[in-house]
Amino acid sequence: MSQQGVTPQSEDFSKWYTDVVQKTDLADYSPVRGCMIIKPYGYELWEGVKGGLDRRFKATGHRNAYFPLFIPESFLKKEAEHVEGFSPELAVVTIGGGKQLEEPLVVRPTSETIIGWAFQKWIQSHRDLPLLINQWANVVRWELRTRLFLRTMEFLWQEGHTAHATHEDALEETMRMLGVYADFAINDAAIPVIQGRKSSQERFAGANASFSIEAMMRDRKALQAGTSHDLGQNFAKAFEIQFTDESNELQYCWTTSWGLSTRMVGAIIMTHGDDQGLRLPPRLAPIQVVVVPIFRSDDERGPVVETVERLAGALREAGVRVHVDDRENLSPGFKFNDWEMRGVPLRMEVGPKDVAKNSVALARRDIPGKAGKEFVSQDGLVAAIRERLDAIQANLLQQATEFRDSHLHEVTGGYDDLIRVIKGDEWGLAWFCGAADCEQRVKEDAQAVSRCFPLEQPHPGETGACVICGGEAKEMAYFAKAY
Amino acid sequence: MSQQGVTPQSEDFSKWYTDVVQKTDLADYSPVRGCMIIKPYGYELWEGVKGGLDRRFKATGHRNAYFPLFIPESFLKKEAEHVEGFSPELAVVTIGGGKQLEEPLVVRPTSETIIGWAFQKWIQSHRDLPLLINQWANVVRWELRTRLFLRTMEFLWQEGHTAHATHEDALEETMRMLGVYADFAINDAAIPVIQGRKSSQERFAGANASFSIEAMMRDRKALQAGTSHDLGQNFAKAFEIQFTDESNELQYCWTTSWGLSTRMVGAIIMTHGDDQGLRLPPRLAPIQVVVVPIFRSDDERGPVVETVERLAGALREAGVRVHVDDRENLSPGFKFNDWEMRGVPLRMEVGPKDVAKNSVALARRDIPGKAGKEFVSQDGLVAAIRERLDAIQANLLQQATEFRDSHLHEVTGGYDDLIRVIKGDEWGLAWFCGAADCEQRVKEDAQAVSRCFPLEQPHPGETGACVICGGEAKEMAYFAKAY
Repeated sequence: MSQQGVTPQSEDFSKWYTDVVQKTDLADYSPVRGCMIIKPYGYELWEGVKGGLDRRFKATGHRNAYFPLFIPESFLKKEAEHVEGFSPELAVVTIGGGKQLEEPLVVRPTSETIIGWAFQKWIQSHRDLPLLINQWANVVRWELRTRLFLRTMEFLWQEGHTAHATHEDALEETMRMLGVYADFAINDAAIPVIQGRKSSQERFAGANASFSIEAMMRDRKALQAGTSHDLGQNFAKAFEIQFTDESNELQYCWTTSWGLSTRMVGAIIMTHGDDQGLRLPPRLAPIQVVVVPIFRSDDERGPVVETVERLAGALREAGVRVHVDDRENLSPGFKFNDWEMRGVPLRMEVGPKDVAKNSVALARRDIPGKAGKEFVSQDGLVAAIRERLDAIQANLLQQATEFRDSHLHEVTGGYDDLIRVIKGDEWGLAWFCGAADCEQRVKEDAQAVSRCFPLEQPHPGETGACVICGGEAKEMAYFAKAY
Repeated sequence: MSQQGVTPQSEDFSKWYTDVVQKTDLADYSPVRGCMIIKPYGYELWEGVKGGLDRRFKATGHRNAYFPLFIPESFLKKEAEHVEGFSPELAVVTIGGGKQLEEPLVVRPTSETIIGWAFQKWIQSHRDLPLLINQWANVVRWELRTRLFLRTMEFLWQEGHTAHATHEDALEETMRMLGVYADFAINDAAIPVIQGRKSSQERFAGANASFSIEAMMRDRKALQAGTSHDLGQNFAKAFEIQFTDESNELQYCWTTSWGLSTRMVGAIIMTHGDDQGLRLPPRLAPIQVVVVPIFRSDDERGPVVETVERLAGALREAGVRVHVDDRENLSPGFKFNDWEMRGVPLRMEVGPKDVAKNSVALARRDIPGKAGKEFVSQDGLVAAIRERLDAIQANLLQQATEFRDSHLHEVTGGYDDLIRVIKGDEWGLAWFCGAADCEQRVKEDAQAVSRCFPLEQPHPGETGACVICGGEAKEMAYFAKAY
């Protein structure tokens, strides 16, 4: 319950974000620096994300499993790039059961290594392939500069791990899961993400190629919202993941991994939120419809409450997530503001006049003021509400897409133009050779790196001159400041 | 895929258990001693447990949240009994991000302390009460003698944590959640648990009173399958969880906690399993119906496969969890044995004769051989299968209840009789004063302690002489060997 609103986005975006997360009870800081507490409203939003993804994973043939939190330190060292990438971020258990451990245990920062160990045991023949596994888990990467949901030492995520007989199969899986992420982001979270390949500098430690979905936040910074990696045979060779093929010869597997975390909650907040607070996409909103009963006297109260209970019951029965705000001693106006801040897509008001007229008032979170308010009949209410939830879902996606597209710029004026675009908090699309030196120069000049080489290239089949070094570039890449 | 069966229960129960868990692909050992890998089939069973509990938690007004994995070492020390109980079992992180930590972080063995810290922040007024929170998480208690699902260093569980204005409310919650566990165990897992109060010696470190559901395994050992604790004001005082009551006075809250873990999977295995392997209760079985197509030639294959696909599709549509075993080069007989071992409640066979006669053969896992097999029409198949799944669910509960009741004995021949009963691997019900000395004596003489004072006392209102010391006893308790 909060009397005050949030800092406006335009005034201080970063403060707006922290305000929204805390005042809407999504999450809070914890006594352990770097860790966060996910409060029920935030966890329910995460449950929506989990549900949407888990359904898609199962529909594409994956099965959930669970692997140990602790990984022997020696495991990480088996893949050279992997250990180099993760070493600085590890939390290490050195004492167990009151005794110093002979081999320290690492708290998993990701599970390629321990799952690689298991795959080596589980896979014998080509008949065991593909092996398609997913894990829902917590992971830890040492980090003290906390930003709730965006950057925390411990976070929740899913990590998919698969093994295949051929590189072609592994690459197909990598792209399929990137597509699953994009489908979820676009259709459930209403976030118009861009799918693309990361540059060599930005790829996962141990991968041959990394792909991501990139989202544009309301401050026009980029947020990497999910990644999918083609791991080649790197982990297969490090962990001896082998199979006998159809000609009975021993081969190394080709593996993939892909992950999406509680960061997605941050992406939802920063894609849709406005000066009043959250705006949650109906498919993921913990509460889709909040009902505010309105009455001034005990005489009015009875029939209003009765109507509210009947209508809320019918909506619940139909699978709509409804909350009746029956808090006493709070004015309807206070409640309207409160639920607006909490981003509930649709508000339903029921007063004595509505009881008399067999109507209710519906107010859309995505259309402010009178324009978003209308009176509808109590008959056929479920259908009317479903229709509006669908319309809100579509409108949030459309608004976010228009916002994104208005801030994407194909760079035509050379390197200076690229830097100007990035510094102006826009995304620049430019020919890029992919070299580390070039990426480093942009980093120094504009505190930004490439986001991705988008799968959908604007000039397919063409080549160009790298906007940074002038060398040959086969693809264009997005450059932008990022979370 | 396993060619060999499991060691018979009667021959070596412990070996039977390990065989079943590994050969049916429920779980496996991990490279980290004490930790386990939950394989997909085991994890799907756990997902069934989670689903059944989560629905019940939400229906009783609880909301899920998530708290940090790491707890400052100093937190545990705030509640004297708590730290004493858990200190020997802790895993401790001393290195983070490459540096020695100033204050070591404990990997949560349970979360009363860190949630207590949060509750202190979240609760101000009596209007914030009751606060009803649940967390699904992994916890770590140092333990190197691994028994898959039963005793592992890391395990998955849920832990409920609630705060109330009065002791009466807290106790009511404690008993409500014990009842929720019993309802789940009996109706979903088909395990006829006994609800009771633990002795002072056996209660949770930091609780005023602990309650549990106790289940009898097929080797007649007891397994504590879930616990619910009345924490009094112990944690409220340690963490300053206070609220202003209706007269505006500051009061300490009364808190509870309750937990159920992946141990429940072990309970399901050891309650229902037989010499052939698992027998899974239909409500929780990852696969409720396995379909085995039977054909000898390509001519027969076409119509059989077509029928199988049509029927399996209709069952799936109706929400039945179906798996079609279309593995090639494996005989139907091999498949029958394999799925029998994996405990699938119902097997459906479809051969050329069934296609011709518009029938299928159904074989129940709980009734061996011909007695459990029948031919039913393809018309109305969904209803026929639902009916049989319900019958299997009921039969497993009935068999387990009869088994349990035949091994419960009210001790009438004094202490020697109690020891004889326990040593004979039976459960003895006897008057017990609850004293630590008495419990210790039984432990020394029979390697067993009291399981619980059952809520349903056989002689309500009466008192008796403690079977151990002869002193006054207000209640009878069960004594048995336990996991």
